Amino acid sequence: MKLKWLLGLVTMVSALGAAAPDDPVSRVRAWREQHEKQILLELFDFLKLPNVATNKGDIERNAQALTRLLELRRFLPDRIATAGSPVVIAERRAAAARRTITFYFHYDGQPVDPAEWTYEPPFSPVIVAEHEPAGRTITLSSWNDKIDPEWRIYGRSSSDDKSPIIAFLAAIDGLENANIPLTSNVRVVLEGDEEAGSPSLETVVREHGGRIGGDALIMVDGPRHASGRPTLFFGARGIMSAVITVYGPLRDLHSGNYGNWAPNPALALAKLLASMKDDEGRVTVDGFYDDVTPLTAEERKAIEEIPDVAPTLMQTFGFSKPENQTDRLELRHNLPTLNINAYEAGGGVGGQGRTVIPASASARLDLRL
Amino acid sequence: MKLKWLLGLVTMVSALGAAAPDDPVSRVRAWREQHEKQILLELFDFLKLPNVATNKGDIERNAQALTRLLELRRFLPDRIATAGSPVVIAERRAAAARRTITFYFHYDGQPVDPAEWTYEPPFSPVIVAEHEPAGRTITLSSWNDKIDPEWRIYGRSSSDDKSPIIAFLAAIDGLENANIPLTSNVRVVLEGDEEAGSPSLETVVREHGGRIGGDALIMVDGPRHASGRPTLFFGARGIMSAVITVYGPLRDLHSGNYGNWAPNPALALAKLLASMKDDEGRVTVDGFYDDVTPLTAEERKAIEEIPDVAPTLMQTFGFSKPENQTDRLELRHNLPTLNINAYEAGGGVGGQGRTVIPASASARLDLRL
Repeated sequence: MKLKWLLGLVTMVSALGAAAPDDPVSRVRAWREQHEKQILLELFDFLKLPNVATNKGDIERNAQALTRLLELRRFLPDRIATAGSPVVIAERRAAAARRTITFYFHYDGQPVDPAEWTYEPPFSPVIVAEHEPAGRTITLSSWNDKIDPEWRIYGRSSSDDKSPIIAFLAAIDGLENANIPLTSNVRVVLEGDEEAGSPSLETVVREHGGRIGGDALIMVDGPRHASGRPTLFFGARGIMSAVITVYGPLRDLHSGNYGNWAPNPALALAKLLASMKDDEGRVTVDGFYDDVTPLTAEERKAIEEIPDVAPTLMQTFGFSKPENQTDRLELRHNLPTLNINAYEAGGGVGGQGRTVIPASASARLDLRL
Repeated sequence: MKLKWLLGLVTMVSALGAAAPDDPVSRVRAWREQHEKQILLELFDFLKLPNVATNKGDIERNAQALTRLLELRRFLPDRIATAGSPVVIAERRAAAARRTITFYFHYDGQPVDPAEWTYEPPFSPVIVAEHEPAGRTITLSSWNDKIDPEWRIYGRSSSDDKSPIIAFLAAIDGLENANIPLTSNVRVVLEGDEEAGSPSLETVVREHGGRIGGDALIMVDGPRHASGRPTLFFGARGIMSAVITVYGPLRDLHSGNYGNWAPNPALALAKLLASMKDDEGRVTVDGFYDDVTPLTAEERKAIEEIPDVAPTLMQTFGFSKPENQTDRLELRHNLPTLNINAYEAGGGVGGQGRTVIPASASARLDLRL
C-alpha cells in the first residue's frame, strides 16, 4: 500500500493581519467582522439539529438543512441516498475557473450522553464566556456587543465537524459580498456516517466520482494545532485495526499443577507485542516503513517553524517523557503508527482472580498508515 | 524467604501387591476389601453435606460430622472457632509411639453451580460406571456386587478434599481391625476455609501449635499424578499474588493525534511482562532463584523413575511444546513459578473498540515459591 503523508503546517496569523485595507483578504475580513453574529446564528441553528447517525429522522433534517444552506449560495446540491445517511454533494462553478477544488466535511456526530453536559444539553448550543467555577454563559439572542474570540461554543459537533461547514459557507459569502470572483470551481462532499467509519463513502465516490473529484481535495476535519494557530495538514493517514489472539491450552489450566511447563498465551502475546516496537518507539515489524516517503528538507523546515507544544501537552496529559525523545510530535505525525488500544487475558484483572494459565490472550491494535 | 521444595514421587503399586498374605499390609487390605461398600457409604454420607464455606450452617454440620467420625476412632476431637469456619483438631496417641505425625485435610469445597452437574446435583453423590454418552450411574443403596476401581464418584469435594479424609479414617479402621498397633501418635487438623485461602489457619496454628505440631506433617490435598499411581509430594509451594499497573497519560488519548508520541502503558506492561521470562521459561527477575536448594542426585533419580505423562497431557490440553523443552514436568514442579493469570488494558478487546492510548494497563501474576 502507498502511504499518504501528513504534514502539519501552521500559517502565520500575522501574515493576514499585515494586509492592506483594500486588498481582497481585508475586504472579506471586514465583511466577516460586520456579520459575526449572523454567522454564529446560522451555526447555532445548525447545531440545534441532533445528528447521531443512528437516528435516521434527525440525520435527514441535517441533510435538508445543508441542502438549503448550499442552495442559498447557488451550489446546486444533491442528496445521494446510501444504506446509511445521505451524502450531500454540490458544486459552484466559477466563470474563468483554472481548477476544481473539493472540500470534504461530515455532518454526523459521536453518540452523546446528555448527563455529561454541564452548561446546556448537547443540542442547545451556548457560548461559554468564562469557564467553571465562575461559569458565565451567553445566549446570542440578546447579545449585541463585541464578540470575544476567546469565547467557546459548547454544542455537539461544534468542533467535529459542523463549525467548519458554516465557516466554509461564511467564506463563500465573504468573497461574494466583497465582489471577489472565485478562480476555482468549488465542490463539496458532506458525509453523514463519518463517526461510524464511513461505510458508504467508497460506493458514493465510485458511483459519482465525476461530480466529486477535483484537482485538490481539502478535508476540513481534524484537530487544530495545540498552539491555537490555524492548521493545515498536507495529507491524512488511514486507519486499520487488527485483533491478535494467541491460543494456549484448550482450557484454562491450574497454574500450580502446570505453571512453568504449559505455555502461557498471555506471556506469548506480551512477548509478541513487546517485540513490535523498540525502546525509541520505532516499529520493528519487517517492512513496516518500506513505503514511507522521507520528508523533504523544505517539509522539515516547515515543521521546525511550528511552535513546539510538547511541554504544554505533556503537562496536560501527565507524563514526562514521550515515546521517542529525539523527534518532535509533528515529525512523529509523519510516520505510520502501531498502537495497542486494548488487550485482555484470563477474564481481566478485576475478574475472579483465578490462578490459571489462561487458554487464550487477545490484543487489539490500530495502525495509522 | 526460604523455599520449600516439592518433589513428586510415585510409589510402585507392585511393591504392595507383592506382600505376603499374612503381613500387615495384606491384613489391612483384606479388611478393606471386605468393607469397601461400608467405607463408600460413610463417604457418601459425608459428601451429602453441602460445604460451601460462605454457608455457616452447612459448614457447622460438616464440622460436627467430622467430630463424630473422629470420636468413633477415639481421636478426642476439638472444634476451634475462628472468624470463619471451625478448625477441627484431634489426636490419637499410640502406646509406644516413637514420633508424632500430623495429617492436614480441608473439608470445605469450591463454590458450585448445580446447573453444571449433568448426572446428579453436586451434593447427591453418585457412581458413574460408564461415562456419557452411555452414561451408566450406580447408587450404592441397592448395589451388592463387586466394586470396580475404575468407577468414578461424582459429588462436590469427592476429590478435593473429602475422600482423602474418609480414606484416612478407613486406614485407621483397617489397622485397628487387623490388630496392628500404631507406632506413631497421629494428629489431624481439618480446615474449613482452604478454598478461601486459609485466612484463619495461621492464627489457629499460632494459638494451638502444641496440639497440632508433630515430627512430620502430611498434607493430604493435591493432585494425583496423571499416571494414576499413588502420589507422594515431598514439600509444597506457597502462593503469592501480585497486581502490576502501569500508568500512562492521565486519561485515554486519541491514538491518531498522539500515537507514536505519548507513551502507551499497554506496550510498557507488555515489555515488562515479556522481560520476566526468557524463551526457555526461566524467570529473569533478579534473585528469583537465589534461595532454591538444588535437587540431590537421589531426588533427580527418583523423578526419573516417575512415568513420563507429558505426551498424554499435551495431547489432552492441546499443545505441542512445553515452555521448557529440556526439563520434564516433575523437574519444573521443583522450581518456583511466575505465571500471568490475567491482564487488561483499554477496557478489553470485546469493548467499545476505541482507538485510544489507554491511560493504564494492569496484569495479575501468581507466583509459587
